[in-house]
Amino acid sequence: MADKFVGERNIRFLLYEVFDATSLLKYPRYADHSREAFDMILETAMKLGRDLFRPALREMDKNQPEFADGRVKVHPQVKEIMQICGAGGWISATTPAELGGQQLPAILGFVPMFIFSAANYAASVYPYLTDGAAHLIYSFGTEELINAYLPRMYAGDWQGTMALTEPQAGSSLSDITTLAEPGDDGYYRIRGQKIFISTGDHDGVQNVVHLLLARIAGAPPGVKGISLFIVPKMRPDESGGLVFNDVHVAGIYHKMGYRGAPITQLSFGENGDCRGYLVGQPNRGLSQMFQLMNEARIAVGIAAAGIASAAYYAALEYTRERPQGRPPTAKDPLSPQVPIIEHPDVKRMLLFQRAVVEGSLSLLMQCGKYVDLEKVLEGKEKEKYSLLLEILTPVAKSYPAEMGILAVSQALQCLGGYGYCDEFPIEQLYRDARIHPIHEGTTGIQALDLLGRKVPMKNGEAAMLLIREFEETIAAANGEPHLQSYARELEEAVDKLKKVTAHLVGLAMQGKIDLFLADATLYLEFFGIVTIGWQWLLQAMAAHKALRMNPAGTEMNFYQGKLYTFRYFFQYELPKIEGLAKTLLAGSRITVDMKKDFF
Amino acid sequence: MADKFVGERNIRFLLYEVFDATSLLKYPRYADHSREAFDMILETAMKLGRDLFRPALREMDKNQPEFADGRVKVHPQVKEIMQICGAGGWISATTPAELGGQQLPAILGFVPMFIFSAANYAASVYPYLTDGAAHLIYSFGTEELINAYLPRMYAGDWQGTMALTEPQAGSSLSDITTLAEPGDDGYYRIRGQKIFISTGDHDGVQNVVHLLLARIAGAPPGVKGISLFIVPKMRPDESGGLVFNDVHVAGIYHKMGYRGAPITQLSFGENGDCRGYLVGQPNRGLSQMFQLMNEARIAVGIAAAGIASAAYYAALEYTRERPQGRPPTAKDPLSPQVPIIEHPDVKRMLLFQRAVVEGSLSLLMQCGKYVDLEKVLEGKEKEKYSLLLEILTPVAKSYPAEMGILAVSQALQCLGGYGYCDEFPIEQLYRDARIHPIHEGTTGIQALDLLGRKVPMKNGEAAMLLIREFEETIAAANGEPHLQSYARELEEAVDKLKKVTAHLVGLAMQGKIDLFLADATLYLEFFGIVTIGWQWLLQAMAAHKALRMNPAGTEMNFYQGKLYTFRYFFQYELPKIEGLAKTLLAGSRITVDMKKDFF
Repeated sequence: MADKFVGERNIRFLLYEVFDATSLLKYPRYADHSREAFDMILETAMKLGRDLFRPALREMDKNQPEFADGRVKVHPQVKEIMQICGAGGWISATTPAELGGQQLPAILGFVPMFIFSAANYAASVYPYLTDGAAHLIYSFGTEELINAYLPRMYAGDWQGTMALTEPQAGSSLSDITTLAEPGDDGYYRIRGQKIFISTGDHDGVQNVVHLLLARIAGAPPGVKGISLFIVPKMRPDESGGLVFNDVHVAGIYHKMGYRGAPITQLSFGENGDCRGYLVGQPNRGLSQMFQLMNEARIAVGIAAAGIASAAYYAALEYTRERPQGRPPTAKDPLSPQVPIIEHPDVKRMLLFQRAVVEGSLSLLMQCGKYVDLEKVLEGKEKEKYSLLLEILTPVAKSYPAEMGILAVSQALQCLGGYGYCDEFPIEQLYRDARIHPIHEGTTGIQALDLLGRKVPMKNGEAAMLLIREFEETIAAANGEPHLQSYARELEEAVDKLKKVTAHLVGLAMQGKIDLFLADATLYLEFFGIVTIGWQWLLQAMAAHKALRMNPAGTEMNFYQGKLYTFRYFFQYELPKIEGLAKTLLAGSRITVDMKKDFF
Repeated sequence: MADKFVGERNIRFLLYEVFDATSLLKYPRYADHSREAFDMILETAMKLGRDLFRPALREMDKNQPEFADGRVKVHPQVKEIMQICGAGGWISATTPAELGGQQLPAILGFVPMFIFSAANYAASVYPYLTDGAAHLIYSFGTEELINAYLPRMYAGDWQGTMALTEPQAGSSLSDITTLAEPGDDGYYRIRGQKIFISTGDHDGVQNVVHLLLARIAGAPPGVKGISLFIVPKMRPDESGGLVFNDVHVAGIYHKMGYRGAPITQLSFGENGDCRGYLVGQPNRGLSQMFQLMNEARIAVGIAAAGIASAAYYAALEYTRERPQGRPPTAKDPLSPQVPIIEHPDVKRMLLFQRAVVEGSLSLLMQCGKYVDLEKVLEGKEKEKYSLLLEILTPVAKSYPAEMGILAVSQALQCLGGYGYCDEFPIEQLYRDARIHPIHEGTTGIQALDLLGRKVPMKNGEAAMLLIREFEETIAAANGEPHLQSYARELEEAVDKLKKVTAHLVGLAMQGKIDLFLADATLYLEFFGIVTIGWQWLLQAMAAHKALRMNPAGTEMNFYQGKLYTFRYFFQYELPKIEGLAKTLLAGSRITVDMKKDFF
């Protein structure tokens, strides 16, 4: 197995050279940290990635969770991981200090998440789902709930989950039917079924805490009648002990990949004794849950980039070592074979992977910085970063998820037949990566979110703010002579994006809602490419700045590689918008008009 | 598991309405057949697909071949399949009657191959590798070899293989080192290692016959010193018995998919007693092997389309039955949910799959017809079809292989979380499909073959002949008023293809060979899209012709669906050439200049 699974140098580049993470230290919220503290987090996360997460990668795939006697048994490393992530403060990395957390900026919090998911994605979801669930509790829960749940969750003793999906509803959350009947003691009696619940039960923790959506009896239909509850598997009783809360595992799913984490089917209240504790306001559950959903979507983007990163470094190692073939100009069959990394087609495949991995991670770090600025600023500025996050979330989830699959596939291709065999890790990564366009809202759902909600929201303000960000970067890049032609390329791409957006919004304004949304997925793809182009231009500016200091050796190589990958993106990836624009502007009615009987 | 895995109606459409397979009956070679015979072949193949191949699909995946005590044990159904395919004449379907075959046209021979691979790809390779190996023997072998091997191979008693790849050579066949030392009895003594040999050993047959590439001692280096041998695992002795021929299984590979077929590592002549029998001329082995390679490449295309077909029908069944969500205009959360096939995004995913499956199959049937015409015609006409096949083979292999992966991925996406779980067949198909861009020459190798060999061959004659075929179809489509705008679209695409080709060939003429070939894979992709566009225009013409007869019911639905899929291809797939053309014409040196230390 390849030793390297993430580029530590690249993380430093993004943190400090592109996004200037230390600039956050001037805000009181982050003033207790320092560049040294940031460096230590990165270093320790690398060590944990290598020593705690990575070694169990293959084993957790081969020995899937088992369901027997109503319990889910997972790999013993899970308990170790939860305990160490609890004790080390990794679960509460971005949690405010007053709640026992490290109060790190999100951009720093994303670093271990990326490293751990690159090392072993399935293992990383246990602590991070717990983190997300705990965040929901302290954002909307009472002090009593916070005190009852957070310490044990942050310690890694209790697992957190998000329990949304139901058999009859799937992506259509307005159709959930799990029922919450008010009891007489401040709690609700829960009854219903949830499916596809990640880490919904396992023996690596003492308890599982579900953040669950349900309808309070008599609530209005649709999304306006959904409330959020804490439903623990074991509920704390008055004496400080734990009592079984009538939460049953009905089964686990056997999946193609992502096998180290149990995905469960749960049944609540079969015996009428399942208590749920309301979090926040009745009937406000869905909008509250969106805090966690949005975080989870960004986390999926990070994990997708992480898996693609691991595959890229495995391919890089192999292509550097595997001799095969000769340049087309070398006619002598007795001349030595060259390592396959010397072939332009192999370099192209590697550049593609690197462009996806580092372009995606850059966008995700950008989102992290917006999260941080949104937290520390006030008024219009706060709203600006909040809106930028709103519009970027579907892109930050989907671009890495969709392109990550293709990147891992190209990594597999670099190894030829060996890539398809299980003595190499890439076939597992290929299976693992495929979950990302599905969970936390499919790509189709992200596309509807982007075009149907985020673009029109507040009269297009989020979209206008993002385009202003693009334009600021373009203007800045125009100051660097080597980048002017690329700045112009991005400017043209942004103009095309405006044109396509105006065309689609025009359809909505004519009341042609079906047509407006029919090709939302293509629009998301288009939008994603332009957005990643922006991130690559930002990175190129930072690389040029660094090259003016005349670095040598591996430092010079790093920046040169960065610029080649940037140019690759602009010359091979950005042109993909041409075809997309043509299709989107043609306004085909095909997918609206096609009848199901014609298939 | 979905009942349907291929569209029988579509096969009839292609056979009779698009490619007029019965027109082949006028040639003496095929005069003994009839439309009724063709229909019966299709019908019987469907029955075998359903009853013989399909039932073992999941089991052969779950219970992989096992290697123990030097032998490979496969699923018991393999023996059944080989025996029935032998007895039914399916292995020798296109073999001349004088050799005991059915002497079917290739276009008819492709039909069972497509059906069986859609039903159970791994199972289908046992008979078809035997067919290909036997073809090589009767094309170049002596009568003695033909008599010794063919009857047992066609009976399904002996397995055929192609044994090319070696550990140190991989795709670089000029580097193979397996040695053949002339013995004193008309045979050669073989010594060497082969890897990745499909069906290289198993207990479903009595013997395995390797068609193996090796170097005769003293042969020139490189491809000009490679010869072709028959190397059986058990060699027939004088008494008609079988003697162990010193062929050892060193191991089998554990693969991500395509698990029903054992891929073996073989060792020849460990004890100095492995006999090989020369086939054809010494040092002509590689060019002889290319007959089998080209057939195997087309077979990969057929199988890739077959797997994508199975995934498409599974997705179609699911999306018709699964209710979820409502149209964007339906605001009432209490209105019933609609089957997800009603959502335009789902229809788009299904149209994409159908466009890939039926577009690919159309191109493959087109190739089948060229094989048949090449066989029955003489002189310039014969050469024309031979050249068309040469230039189309890399496309007919790669387009289905690469796009098939994306099609299966979209099928999986249609099922959401369920698509990722192993209670549904698509996750297996997703794993199975991934082999196709790797084996029988990776996509990168196909691209070098197309741009580096086939386009320049005979001063570009193959390319010019193909473009003439495109232009004839465009001219014919111009006669159908509904198709004129599409004919114009294809014409523009063909013009772009000419322009890009001229640009690239220009680089070669300036001696910039590295640059000429650097983006061959993108050129192959471009070429593939235009070629499939041509096939869709051909299909649209046939559909319009049929609609003039005012068909009703399911017939009308079939033709309407065909036309929607055709329009989908032109409006969603064909525009992808815009970005590719931009990249290819820009003449970037990135992948040539990028240094390996910059990664």
